[in-house]
Amino acid sequence: MTGAHFNRYCPLNKPEPLNNVRVVLSHTSHPGNIGAAARAMKVMGLRHLYLINPRHFPDALANAMAAGADDILENAVVCASIDEALQGVVYTVAMTARLRDISIEVKTPREAAPQVMQETSAGPVALLFGTEMSGLTNEEMGKAQLGVNIPANPEFSSLNVASAVQLMAYELSVAAAAFQPALPEITPAAHERVEGLYEHLEKTLAEIGFFTTQNPERLMRRLRRLYSRTRLEDEEVNLLRGILSVTTEYNARLRKRYQEEHPDV
Amino acid sequence: MTGAHFNRYCPLNKPEPLNNVRVVLSHTSHPGNIGAAARAMKVMGLRHLYLINPRHFPDALANAMAAGADDILENAVVCASIDEALQGVVYTVAMTARLRDISIEVKTPREAAPQVMQETSAGPVALLFGTEMSGLTNEEMGKAQLGVNIPANPEFSSLNVASAVQLMAYELSVAAAAFQPALPEITPAAHERVEGLYEHLEKTLAEIGFFTTQNPERLMRRLRRLYSRTRLEDEEVNLLRGILSVTTEYNARLRKRYQEEHPDV
Repeated sequence: MTGAHFNRYCPLNKPEPLNNVRVVLSHTSHPGNIGAAARAMKVMGLRHLYLINPRHFPDALANAMAAGADDILENAVVCASIDEALQGVVYTVAMTARLRDISIEVKTPREAAPQVMQETSAGPVALLFGTEMSGLTNEEMGKAQLGVNIPANPEFSSLNVASAVQLMAYELSVAAAAFQPALPEITPAAHERVEGLYEHLEKTLAEIGFFTTQNPERLMRRLRRLYSRTRLEDEEVNLLRGILSVTTEYNARLRKRYQEEHPDV
Repeated sequence: MTGAHFNRYCPLNKPEPLNNVRVVLSHTSHPGNIGAAARAMKVMGLRHLYLINPRHFPDALANAMAAGADDILENAVVCASIDEALQGVVYTVAMTARLRDISIEVKTPREAAPQVMQETSAGPVALLFGTEMSGLTNEEMGKAQLGVNIPANPEFSSLNVASAVQLMAYELSVAAAAFQPALPEITPAAHERVEGLYEHLEKTLAEIGFFTTQNPERLMRRLRRLYSRTRLEDEEVNLLRGILSVTTEYNARLRKRYQEEHPDV
């Protein structure tokens, strides 16, 4: 194929948004699916594959199914955790078969693709795909800013994971052809910076005794949802963590003074 | 998945355009691809699979890759020729990696999908996929009214045939969700009726000695192209064949008279 779409966004003076897209496959069971996903990515112009704890990798079957996209497999980054796979990422999209019980906004691939292209202007964007059997965990979903659901036959919704990669990569390549980068309104903080804030927040809330009346897990999920919508900037992460630090210090000072005034306690 | 798209076109009082779509795989080498294609079809709401001379079918690997879409495989129609596979079809789309040396109009999947949905109002529509190695033959391309090219990475355009089925089925399911049937402007003749005309035409042209100065194959390709654009109605096929019959009869009468007047020849 000569790919007219591709020629439109490949000139040297234009950004290559697809190069800022990272496909993350979580706990994939079948190595053939990893290979088929690599082939699906490459044929649509995607390059960066991340694998969280794949059951078998590297594997001859993966290479067989890659059918020439071996470079994608060779350069694949194998990670031990989702946070490792999302290192440096500024926007995470969770591919999900679920439409209910999801705390984030859910779009179709067609609706999401132009937005994903815009997000690549600020930094790496991750597409997160779950296991063949059960998809993404709640914890993994909680790391995403957007959910994408591929509409399927309600009587047979068993979409192969490599096929899901193929469809999403296709939508992105079509969106990339029409892509005009807008000036990013904010400079979003990287994944690990936001995770650092959540940890700090959870620790602080525990320290000030907030969780005595609240379910910590449920509360943290709601706070993640709130900040995920906001799209925190790096400076804002610093600001919020500053508030948390001061809160803890203030709390420590209070406790110290109390202990000084009530040495008998 | 609950598939919001599907609910929009499934009410009983609306036509089900996807049910009038036929996926035709020509000379598929790997049975796994047939199974993966069946799964891809079913997950997007397509049902009708036709196989022209598959190398291995039925096959356990096909069923394994179908992952539950076994009914599509069980109901698959195995054919000995392309004309058998296109029996009753009113519109044929050739999936092609080529953009040059093609006598028919070529569109992207996104451009083609709404048109394909409209064509289903008149009768069965076929999507024609070639072999893994070499795609469709020129003869097969000649049976189609439209070419569809999936834009791909010019440096790696090796799209798996089941992935091509997946992408096209996806585009059709999205188009079906937005589908509003227009009143068909014409009642197109079925594939075999048009093929009957071409045969009759070729035979007649041979009889009247037209091919003595023309390459028959090239000429028939040009005539196919012409009539393919026109979208012949059933009545028009009758009309044209009537003209052909009269031409032959006139020719036969002329010859007879000539022989009577020149008994010495």
